[in-house]
Parts: sequence; structure tokens; C-alpha cells
Amino acid sequence: TANAAVSLLVAGLDGSVVPVAWDADACPYLAAADWDALGPIIAVQSRDQRLMRLLAIDAANGQTSLLREDTNPHWLDIVPGVPARTPGGKVVWTTIVDGTTRLLVADPAELADGSAAPVTPAGMQVRSVLSVDGDTVLFAASWGEPADIGVWAYSSGELARVSIEPDGPGGVHTAVRSGGTTVFTAKSMARTGAMTRVLRPVVDQHVVDQHVVDQHAVDGTADEVVATIGSLAERPIVGEPRVTFLRAGRRQLRTALILPSWYEPGTVTLPVLMDPYGGPHSQRVTASADAYLSSQWFADQGFAVIVADGRGTPGRGSDWERSIAGDLASPALDDQVDALAAVAEHCERERLADLDLAKVGIRGWSFGGFLSALAVLRRPDVFHAGIAGAPVTDWRLYDTHYTERYLGHPAENPGDYDRSSLLADAPKLSRPLMIIHGLADDNVVIAHALRLSSALLAAGRAHSVLPLTGVTHIASQEDVAENLLLLQVDFLRSALDLPSPPTS
Amino acid sequence: TANAAVSLLVAGLDGSVVPVAWDADACPYLAAADWDALGPIIAVQSRDQRLMRLLAIDAANGQTSLLREDTNPHWLDIVPGVPARTPGGKVVWTTIVDGTTRLLVADPAELADGSAAPVTPAGMQVRSVLSVDGDTVLFAASWGEPADIGVWAYSSGELARVSIEPDGPGGVHTAVRSGGTTVFTAKSMARTGAMTRVLRPVVDQHVVDQHVVDQHAVDGTADEVVATIGSLAERPIVGEPRVTFLRAGRRQLRTALILPSWYEPGTVTLPVLMDPYGGPHSQRVTASADAYLSSQWFADQGFAVIVADGRGTPGRGSDWERSIAGDLASPALDDQVDALAAVAEHCERERLADLDLAKVGIRGWSFGGFLSALAVLRRPDVFHAGIAGAPVTDWRLYDTHYTERYLGHPAENPGDYDRSSLLADAPKLSRPLMIIHGLADDNVVIAHALRLSSALLAAGRAHSVLPLTGVTHIASQEDVAENLLLLQVDFLRSALDLPSPPTS
Repeated sequence: TANAAVSLLVAGLDGSVVPVAWDADACPYLAAADWDALGPIIAVQSRDQRLMRLLAIDAANGQTSLLREDTNPHWLDIVPGVPARTPGGKVVWTTIVDGTTRLLVADPAELADGSAAPVTPAGMQVRSVLSVDGDTVLFAASWGEPADIGVWAYSSGELARVSIEPDGPGGVHTAVRSGGTTVFTAKSMARTGAMTRVLRPVVDQHVVDQHVVDQHAVDGTADEVVATIGSLAERPIVGEPRVTFLRAGRRQLRTALILPSWYEPGTVTLPVLMDPYGGPHSQRVTASADAYLSSQWFADQGFAVIVADGRGTPGRGSDWERSIAGDLASPALDDQVDALAAVAEHCERERLADLDLAKVGIRGWSFGGFLSALAVLRRPDVFHAGIAGAPVTDWRLYDTHYTERYLGHPAENPGDYDRSSLLADAPKLSRPLMIIHGLADDNVVIAHALRLSSALLAAGRAHSVLPLTGVTHIASQEDVAENLLLLQVDFLRSALDLPSPPTS
Repeated sequence: TANAAVSLLVAGLDGSVVPVAWDADACPYLAAADWDALGPIIAVQSRDQRLMRLLAIDAANGQTSLLREDTNPHWLDIVPGVPARTPGGKVVWTTIVDGTTRLLVADPAELADGSAAPVTPAGMQVRSVLSVDGDTVLFAASWGEPADIGVWAYSSGELARVSIEPDGPGGVHTAVRSGGTTVFTAKSMARTGAMTRVLRPVVDQHVVDQHVVDQHAVDGTADEVVATIGSLAERPIVGEPRVTFLRAGRRQLRTALILPSWYEPGTVTLPVLMDPYGGPHSQRVTASADAYLSSQWFADQGFAVIVADGRGTPGRGSDWERSIAGDLASPALDDQVDALAAVAEHCERERLADLDLAKVGIRGWSFGGFLSALAVLRRPDVFHAGIAGAPVTDWRLYDTHYTERYLGHPAENPGDYDRSSLLADAPKLSRPLMIIHGLADDNVVIAHALRLSSALLAAGRAHSVLPLTGVTHIASQEDVAENLLLLQVDFLRSALDLPSPPTS
């Protein structure tokens, strides 16, 4: 069906309403909008997302002027935090050069004629722009290792890492900055929970001394720590996750192996639980202990849990992300298969754990739910049980802006939709499959689960559905979330014919 | 929430509309309406269904006049086919005398003052009035045995059975009659399918001779068979059902045992499948081979199938039907337990079959779905797996007219609703339970299944849901219906830990 028509209006406090005019036939998507000291600024996209225009708006009459036009043979990314402008009129934007998403901070004329040079180097993948504070642009990036996300500041030709790093380099960092003060948050593998510090420029040592909490100097900047913001978060019921990182297979897939806290190599054989997301825009393998708490809980129930980020996941550059163009199924699934094989080989070589490759389950939510159902449908030789949470089952039913980015228009590329969807595979189901879906899901609508269930029923294939009343795309209700974990383990034990857990 | 407000209008072909006036505060339910040679006639009921008024309508002005008022300490039944009137002005109605629903054919004055005597005897349970043709009233009744439903004709003080009975007495008969011609349909245990004959009065032997098809005289009437209406119905894929009838336990529960067609006593032990409806207004144990085709199919998969009609089911009189007042759960469940025990004892004594009482499943639809879920929740000592199709799970969600008949108003009798409903029992689930429900069910709405599933999830109890897209209360789509049978057997085999079927 037709997309929603989007318009933009400048509304004054005096009641005035000025429509903003742009060529919405060429660029129907309003991808980003901001209002800075120089006025409103927007980014608009063509339906195929291969054309993106950066437009400055005259708030008085709604007229727009073109600041920049980008094209890409696959699609253009919407990077969080841009477009933005410095008070001095430089435009903050990103561009892909040599497979790297790079930061642009440039005068409008340089931006428009393409002469603006990136201010970040090749290999530093800009993930988001965090703040524009005066002439300083604070941004997050992965440099080399996608599992690490650091914070950098660019100002007047200088690039500096912002980090307090009490636990050494690495981790997942973020920050916001305004009026020269930075609030910096770090997660790392060294501990669960977040550490938050307030940084201020060293301006007057007399004043600062009274507030100094932590004498760490701040790398490469003239900032120092002036305060710590405490965390009152509950301690997780699982201990520090027991994670081994691997670069798995020929694609060096970033992979985490999570073993039971109580496990001793050489004692028992562990069934395997693959626990992926595996789709665009979300990374599961990061240098943050918090990211593995649920996986550790599953591991403690008696599984070797494997989390692997395959092709299409963020942080490894634009080519990696674009390698799934036209097929959301096969690369994602093949990479899970490769990661499993590589982890098993590593475990055997290093005598790290004894994995039972005859008992491999896979679970996931959203794209991960799609991937789990896909796994048991197309690779029953590898995967012996699947739990599909809120899965996309037919890409024709999902969000046009998301889906057409990867598969194009369904009328033009029906084959790509067919091979990326699950319904035609339903008659092949030969493994236990549990489908979980929130009935109030307004992102992946319940029709996805119902169509798959109907197709399975039409093919006479037994399966299990758990409909979650009043639950949207994320089961945030505490009792639902807890019982979902317990029921998933029950299902896996039954489906993989595992012994009952030791009473503990 | 409030009931729908119902009104009645007499609409003329000239466009006139005359509202019909009655005391809708006292009797808000319009239970039946007919228009005969004397004008429109209606039956209205109080909300508690303990008061029923029979009203004649003056079509010219919409005024009503009271023909009869009935009361009952529990509820009054709506018997199909009445009220009606003969052309001579006699009113056809029913009344309960000595626990028997009996036919009244009386002048309005006798009816109103209560002096009208029933024209049918004690013990003949009138099930429905089929036709009023001149002074002849054709009706269906069970006399003695509720599994048999026969057709009788009442005319001018005479009562005569209408039957051609080629297969001997017994069976499930029905008929319609107009202008002296009767179309009579019989089902019996002697064959699957229906046999339909056209009967006419013997008026002139010369004329009739040319049309006589069958020389059977028609019992007790001056009718004879003049035509047979052929049946082109498909032959069932199961053979003649292998049914043993029992009167089970101290309540003489009408019960059918269906054994596998291939079964030989003394060879293998059979798991048991209870296959009840068990609620008001629907009888499963009837003298009709067609009634056991699905049960025979289940039996042929390797089960001893038991169908038992407990308290509340029709055909055994008003006291039997009213014995469930205030509790839709315990009598229904207790009677299934009793029937199972009695069948098992009978099978052992008669060496009819070896039943495995450690492997007892129960399946049912609608009230039978409710009963199946109830069985595994409250009697896991007896029932080891349940399949609940389109179950009522909370009687507060079901039809007020049906539910309040048995449980009264939910605000007045909350305790009766609580003990008759399933949600509070959810935390007790310890047996495999499969819930099947049509998402388009406009009778037992999907909320019933979802509330039970939610309560089970909240209690962390594993269960399986099969949502049927586009399916209403009855899964009539052929492929859905077939696969539902197959998936139910798969579920029972897995839940009862049965061996795979012999390949055949």
C-alpha cells in the first residue's frame, strides 16, 4: 500500500504556520530535522534511499536551499546526530570514503561542491555525532575493532580521543557535551554497569581543585574529571559474564562464546544455544559486560551460548553493511553456521569446552527471531530447535523504509522478497519451533507470526505459538520477561531432549 | 457491560412501521417470534430467565396481549419451534411437568388459566416442534433413551409415532411436514449417512399406486412412503464406527466407547482419549453412526476413545439439565472422571480392551475445550494431556443469555463464576496443554484463549497455543480441519509419550 505522505511545517508561537517546500516527489522521506543557531536544517531521501539531500530552510517563508546532495549505488545511511551546524556556520555531516563512514565539518560551499575533505581517517567508522558544542564536534566511532565504541572530539582541525579509561582501552563509550562540560559514560568487559564521569576543561586550577573527584587526566584533551555520577542500578543476579571473544571463520566474524559459570572443561558435554540478532543496525558483540547478562543466564542453565555478528551488522564499514543488499536471509544464516563451526573448532583445539553439535538451539528476537526461524527451516542439519521472538516472516509486511533499503521495491524485486522471507519454507519444518509474539507489537506486527503459523498449519507442521497479550515489540513487563526466559529454557530442554537441570 | 437493547417492529410493504410494545423492563429478551395465520406471536423472557411471557401481537397497532406466563425456579427453556398456532387457533407450547418437557396444544383460555393438560406423557422429553400443519403438530422427542430421538405427530387428541424404521427402532430422526406431505430423515447406528423418505397420507389407492416406491407402512399413521431422496454425500474415509454403548457409573452416564478398527483384545494396551462436549444443549452420545466418525478416526490412530454425556446435557429431562445450576465446572468434570472409571472397569470385566490409565488425554471444542482445559488443570491425577479447542476460560466473557441461565448475574454470584472459570487454576497446570482458537471466533472470542495463555505465562507454566487465522468458532476450512486433526494426534503422541504410529 502507499506510504504515508509526510509534510513539514514551521509553527510560530504567534500561531503562524509556514509550510516547508521541497521536492517531495524526488525525496519523499524526511530523514532528519534539526534547528540550530542558523535556523532549521533537514535531510530528505528518495524512496530508493540512493539519493539524499541536505536542505537549509528559511523559517520566514519555508523555502529551502540545497546544501549538499549525496548518492550511493545501494543506499545512504542516516547517521544519528547529523545534519548539524556550528555557530560559525560549518555544517556537520558524514560521507563514505574508502568503505569508511567519515566525518565532514565544512563550510557550506565546500560541502556543496564536494571539495570538503573528511576530518576523520580511513578505518575510523563514525557511528554517531553526539554533540556540537561551539566549534567542538563530539562523536562516537569504532576504530579498528567494531566491538569497541569510543568518543572523539574534533575542533579546529584537531582530533582527540575523550576517555577516562580506568579499565584500560576498549569498551563502549558515549558522551554528551554542552557549554564545555562533558558527561561521559563508559561500559566495559571489566565490570557490569555503567561508569559516568563529568569532565570540564582545566580553566582555573584554584576553582577546580575543590571539585576534583578523580585525578585521571583525560586523554588528549584539556579536560579533567570533576565529578562521578553514582549508579544505583540493581546488581545483576548473574555474576560477571564468562565471555571468550573470537574472530570466527574466514570472515573474522566477531563472536562471543559464553560458558556456564560453573563449567569445568572435560567434565560434561554442553548443548549449544546460538543467541544472535544478526541484522542491520544492531550489534550484539560489544566490549560491554552488560551485553551478555541474558546470554550468561542461559549459559548457566547448561548451554554453551554463542553470539555472533554476521554480515550486515554495524561497525565494520559500509561494504560489510552493504553485503546483504538483495538478500536478508542467506548471508545472515551462513554466518551463524560459520560462527558455530569456528567456535566448535576453537573449543576443541583449546580444550575450552566440549560442545554437543547434535543439540544446537537458536533463539532471537525481531531480526534475530526471523533468523532463528530461518535457521530451523533451512538448516535443520545444523539447528535442532528454534525460538523465534517477534519474527519478521514476510518482508512485504515490514516497514517500507527499512525493508526497501535492503531489498528494493517489492514490485521491482519480488524474488529478493521471496528468498528473504519464511512463508514458502513452512512445509519444510522438521525441527521444534516456538514462535513468541506480542499481540500489541506495532513494529513487527502480529500478522508476521500468524502468517507463519497459518502456513505451518496449512502444511501440517507442528509448532508452538506463545501470544503475549498487551505486549509490544519488547516484553518489558517484568513478570512476562522473567517467565519468557524460563519457558524458553523449558522448550529447549524438551526440544533438544536434555536432562532436567540439577536442583541448586 | 450492558446487554444490547432489543426492539421489535412490524414493517408493512407500504412502508409503514409499527413498533411492538411490551414490558421490556420485566422481559428484555425476545426469545422467539413467529407469524402464523392469526398474526404475529412472540415469547419474551426476564433477564434471569425465570419468567417467560407468550404474547399475541395486534399487527395493526403493535399492542400485545398475554397468552401465557411461565415461571421456573432455575430457568425456562426456549424450545425450538414454539410458540406456534394451528389455523383453528390452538396454541402450541411446552411445559415442564414431573421433570418432563411436555407438549401443550390448547385453546388460549386454557393456556392462560393453566388448565391446559399436556398432550404428551411423562417420560417423553419433547426436544423440538418440527411443523404445525393444519391441526397436526409434528415434534421430535426422546422417550426413555436420550440417545434416540424420534418423530411423533399429534392431532385431535391422537399421538402417533412417525417412523419408517428400516433398521429397527432407535436412531436420530427428524422431519418437516406441510400440506399433508412429510419429508422424513433418519440416521442410525446401522449405517453412516442419512436416509430420507417422502411420506403422504393414503387418500386414494388408485393414484398412490403409481407413485409407491416403498411398501413400508408408516407406524401409527395413515401415511405411506411415496419417494426416496437419494444421498450423494461422500463416503467417510473411516469405516463403520466400532462403538460400544454403556450406561456408566451410578449416574448411568450415556457413554460410547470407540475402539480402533484394527484392534484385537489381548494384544496391545491402548492409551485413552476422552472426547466430550459435556455442556448444555449438545449431546454427543446419540444413536447415529455419523456422530462417531471423528472419534473413530482418532481411535484408528491408536486410542480407546470415550465419549460421555454428563449432567447438563439434553434429552434426560429438566432435572438432569438443571443439576449444573451454579456450577459449570465440577459436575461436568466429575462425570468425565466417573465415565472413564466405569469404561475401564467394563473393558476389564468384559475383556473388551486393555486401557492404559496412565496415558489419558482429553480433547474438546467450545464447552468441550473448556472441559479439557479444566480436566488437566484440576484432575492431573486422571488426565495427562489436554487439547482445548476454542475454550471458554472465563465465563464473565461469554454470552450473557447463555451464561446467566446457569450462573446468574456475575455481580450477584461472583463465586459461581470464579469456580466455573479456569484463570485462577492456571498456576496449577502440570500437564501438557494445547490451546487452539480461531482468531475470527465471534462466539467464544479469542480473548478467552489469550487470557488463559497470559495467566499461564504469568505463572510460568509452559503450554502451546495454535491461533487459527481467519477461522471462526468452527474450523470449516477443509485443509485447516484436516491438519488440526493431524496436529492433535502429534501433540497427544508427544505429550503422552506414545510410540510413533505403525506405517500403514
